Amino acid sequence: MTTRRTGGRSARVRENVHLATMDIVWSQGIDALSVAAVAEKSGVHETTIYRRWGTPAGLVVDYVTSETHQAFPVPDNGNLHADLVELLGEIVEFVEQPLGRLVLQLSARRDQPGYEEVREQFRVDRFEAGMKVFEHAAQRGELRPGLDRNLALETLIGPLYVRLLLTDGEVGAELVPEVVDLVLPGMLA
Amino acid sequence: MTTRRTGGRSARVRENVHLATMDIVWSQGIDALSVAAVAEKSGVHETTIYRRWGTPAGLVVDYVTSETHQAFPVPDNGNLHADLVELLGEIVEFVEQPLGRLVLQLSARRDQPGYEEVREQFRVDRFEAGMKVFEHAAQRGELRPGLDRNLALETLIGPLYVRLLLTDGEVGAELVPEVVDLVLPGMLA
Repeated sequence: MTTRRTGGRSARVRENVHLATMDIVWSQGIDALSVAAVAEKSGVHETTIYRRWGTPAGLVVDYVTSETHQAFPVPDNGNLHADLVELLGEIVEFVEQPLGRLVLQLSARRDQPGYEEVREQFRVDRFEAGMKVFEHAAQRGELRPGLDRNLALETLIGPLYVRLLLTDGEVGAELVPEVVDLVLPGMLA
Repeated sequence: MTTRRTGGRSARVRENVHLATMDIVWSQGIDALSVAAVAEKSGVHETTIYRRWGTPAGLVVDYVTSETHQAFPVPDNGNLHADLVELLGEIVEFVEQPLGRLVLQLSARRDQPGYEEVREQFRVDRFEAGMKVFEHAAQRGELRPGLDRNLALETLIGPLYVRLLLTDGEVGAELVPEVVDLVLPGMLA
């Protein structure tokens, strides 16, 4: 009896399609992506790609979500200031990489329904970690009662988002403590 | 001698092209826009459109910038809290209209070089008003010395931007004082 490796061929097909997809995205931009071009570059049949991924957006979403979805570490330094600096620092590190930048840009695009999944995953991963940081701070009595924690997190992330998408301002590690120093006083008890 | 109205025909052509452009954008979305479709709908020759506007993005940019560029009022209520509430309230009012929402979405898109003009105008109009508000506050001694005013404005605008583009959260008039209350303590002397 021979051992049968289930998923072997399917996994190879997926990897080849991912490689071809991202080669086109990085070299020509996302709007140059077509199922026909991915089929030609990957050697995978067009009908197979259509059946499994549906659209060019579906190809990118499958790659991006498989590469970026992971348990996001929850900082736990014993004080809110340090936790927020670490949390925002991780987000900055992510969006400074090409893949993170792509996720951010896709998440802001409303013209392709498929990208909602990327936006939702990006949001959920970061917001869950942020909410745990706030919970720890509340247990230590650091938070102002009645603070809108969602709004606080959106405000902390806000300037990164504005700089990356609107003003083209610098987003580096040195920005993070400045943002925390600016927003923290309005959050504290 | 007859009176010659200069620009009459040219202005009519522009208006017809604008109307056709935005009819397609509102009903089918910006990615459905083509010079051929605008030519057919407006009755203006394709070559004329190419010569004057270049690309579909150029058509949208010309309409959007002609409609939205205006001296942005500078609030002057004698205190920073009231001025910021008024300033952000005007921005919220703008992005709650379809045209403002479109400007915001275009400003976040990096795939069309033509949209940089929209982004830049949106940024400059709002940031100039914001910087004047900060100057007045500094003259009254309200601002913390060494405050990064650009970062402060990016942080105040941040949650609006994050909600509109990332989290799909509510952006209404009631959000504005909450944001100001959150960020203001870190800005004050």
